[in-house]
Amino acid sequence: MSHFWSESVHKLNPYVPGEQPKQQNLTKLNTNENPYGPSPKVLDILHHEAGNDLRLYPDPNCDELKSCIAEYYNINNDQVFVGNGSDEVLAHTFQGLLKHNKPLLFPDITYSFYPVYCGLYDIHHQTIPLNAEFELNIADYNQPNGGIIFPNPNAPTGVGLSLQKVEALLKQNTDSVVVIDEAYIDFGGESAVALINRYPNLLVIQTLSKSRSLAGLRVGFAMGHPDLISGLERVKNSFNSYPLGRLAIKGGVAAIQDDEYFDTTRNKIINTRTLLSQNLATLGFEILPSQANFIFVKHPGYDALTLSQELRKESIIVRHFNHSRINQYLRISIGSEPECAQLRDVLQSIVG
Amino acid sequence: MSHFWSESVHKLNPYVPGEQPKQQNLTKLNTNENPYGPSPKVLDILHHEAGNDLRLYPDPNCDELKSCIAEYYNINNDQVFVGNGSDEVLAHTFQGLLKHNKPLLFPDITYSFYPVYCGLYDIHHQTIPLNAEFELNIADYNQPNGGIIFPNPNAPTGVGLSLQKVEALLKQNTDSVVVIDEAYIDFGGESAVALINRYPNLLVIQTLSKSRSLAGLRVGFAMGHPDLISGLERVKNSFNSYPLGRLAIKGGVAAIQDDEYFDTTRNKIINTRTLLSQNLATLGFEILPSQANFIFVKHPGYDALTLSQELRKESIIVRHFNHSRINQYLRISIGSEPECAQLRDVLQSIVG
Repeated sequence: MSHFWSESVHKLNPYVPGEQPKQQNLTKLNTNENPYGPSPKVLDILHHEAGNDLRLYPDPNCDELKSCIAEYYNINNDQVFVGNGSDEVLAHTFQGLLKHNKPLLFPDITYSFYPVYCGLYDIHHQTIPLNAEFELNIADYNQPNGGIIFPNPNAPTGVGLSLQKVEALLKQNTDSVVVIDEAYIDFGGESAVALINRYPNLLVIQTLSKSRSLAGLRVGFAMGHPDLISGLERVKNSFNSYPLGRLAIKGGVAAIQDDEYFDTTRNKIINTRTLLSQNLATLGFEILPSQANFIFVKHPGYDALTLSQELRKESIIVRHFNHSRINQYLRISIGSEPECAQLRDVLQSIVG
Repeated sequence: MSHFWSESVHKLNPYVPGEQPKQQNLTKLNTNENPYGPSPKVLDILHHEAGNDLRLYPDPNCDELKSCIAEYYNINNDQVFVGNGSDEVLAHTFQGLLKHNKPLLFPDITYSFYPVYCGLYDIHHQTIPLNAEFELNIADYNQPNGGIIFPNPNAPTGVGLSLQKVEALLKQNTDSVVVIDEAYIDFGGESAVALINRYPNLLVIQTLSKSRSLAGLRVGFAMGHPDLISGLERVKNSFNSYPLGRLAIKGGVAAIQDDEYFDTTRNKIINTRTLLSQNLATLGFEILPSQANFIFVKHPGYDALTLSQELRKESIIVRHFNHSRINQYLRISIGSEPECAQLRDVLQSIVG
């Protein structure tokens, strides 16, 4: 605490990301990274672009990347916003589109960065409890609000919401912005991008960090009506003209263009998720149905925090959340098949 | 304009960066980029790091980069903050350290992003006119304030303030944060980093975009008392856990470590600045004394906007600012010797 800080800084409650250990040789199943590297075509273009042109500023509008995303989703360039990871896109969205007199609504169990953004921008919000199965009930959101945001599939549960229900929500809520945070959509969910031309209040946010294996490059994007996008551009251009460097732009384009690699690797992860879920069920774990690259599990006979500590002793890191409703769950990222087999073996030795 | 925007978005007046033309074969002297590429050691490390590990998140705290900067300036790690270009560092600084009841003070002629940040964060500010020689008079800042910020050397004038005067300002102003924006310090100015251990209200901001030739990679940093740095960390961790990707961290480290390349290239730029200034003086231009990698010039016989348009016809881009006090000036980035010779020849054909 310092009297030199702006007053608002004293009240902030910053986000704590999952551990990024400096120690090598850990089986890292704690931050939903992709077990497979980026597309070889991404690495090729990065090698090519790491040259003298890095002395030059990047295109502040990132037109090449926006065009590439627009083409991929069959929308227009002015329906695409890009940022330095989807966390930055979310931050601008909270500041630019979700601060109104009525409260912003989001689930009680969700991405724990949302209340942090509300703190940063002084946004009044209200959490809506998920049902007993950790599902989102859209009828609960049928109330006055200044915006609605949730991940689909939800984090850290992995539970998805059907496109039909997303559309029903949009039909019942036309006066405020609805943000669908699709960080994990490519692992089995149904994207709401298809709806943006019909619902001018819909913003869909995605990232290259998970399904495109580029957490280390920092590229996220949003898609929606040009009026929503231009609001985000106004905020971005009042914050940082050049949020994406030249390598992020070029690497992002190559990642989106290599659809074959994307499809192969995400299908491998989906298959590994199925296998790991079956294996952990055999060991007595209860597993929420997941559409993400992680599973959310608990064991009726073992405390979750203790289990995570036992795993850590065996050099496996998973994520435990200290929140009363979910503190008996572990969130386990889907690693490679050998990593998941190692996890199964260690868990078997503990609970078997 | 859209009713879906947060109220504050309607009032924003976004920054307009210098043009980044898509057209090739232009002599680009408009955005103060370095004419020389990054250090070969930076390119080597980027080639090495563009691999499978990009699937992993970067270190959210960027410890390796902070340590490297701390070692370079002989300070501690907790005196260093890093961000996605110095514009992001500035944004967090405005939000986290410069919003108080009393007005923030900065010069009337300065980096035109400052009033934009004030708009974004609703910060009350007051501009202090530079004197007739475009110099900053520190006595003018001896008044109640919620913070003081200016670039040293100043932009877009290039005029520097001596370290002695910076310290005198710090002595007269101990109750609010003083931010020295040293984007251009390495081209002849005196850094205030040496003062941070004695003045707990001093924050010094630098960038790798200019003197380290890395505008395309996006790395900026701030140095100051640990209390100031922890305030910035609180804002950053409420905004984006991972502002720097893995390549930006590694490339930044290599750039700072290659002091020899840095010194060679900046000295070449300083020498070219001297030569270009002499040549333009011969053509009748008035040139402000510059400590930056650009010069700020006017010609008593020719309108500046017209001159910039004439240069553009000859494929040379310089920057003109539409601000009444400086609209007869051109800001010309120091390019390579051949680029500056080309500029001289074209200007000679116009005014000679």
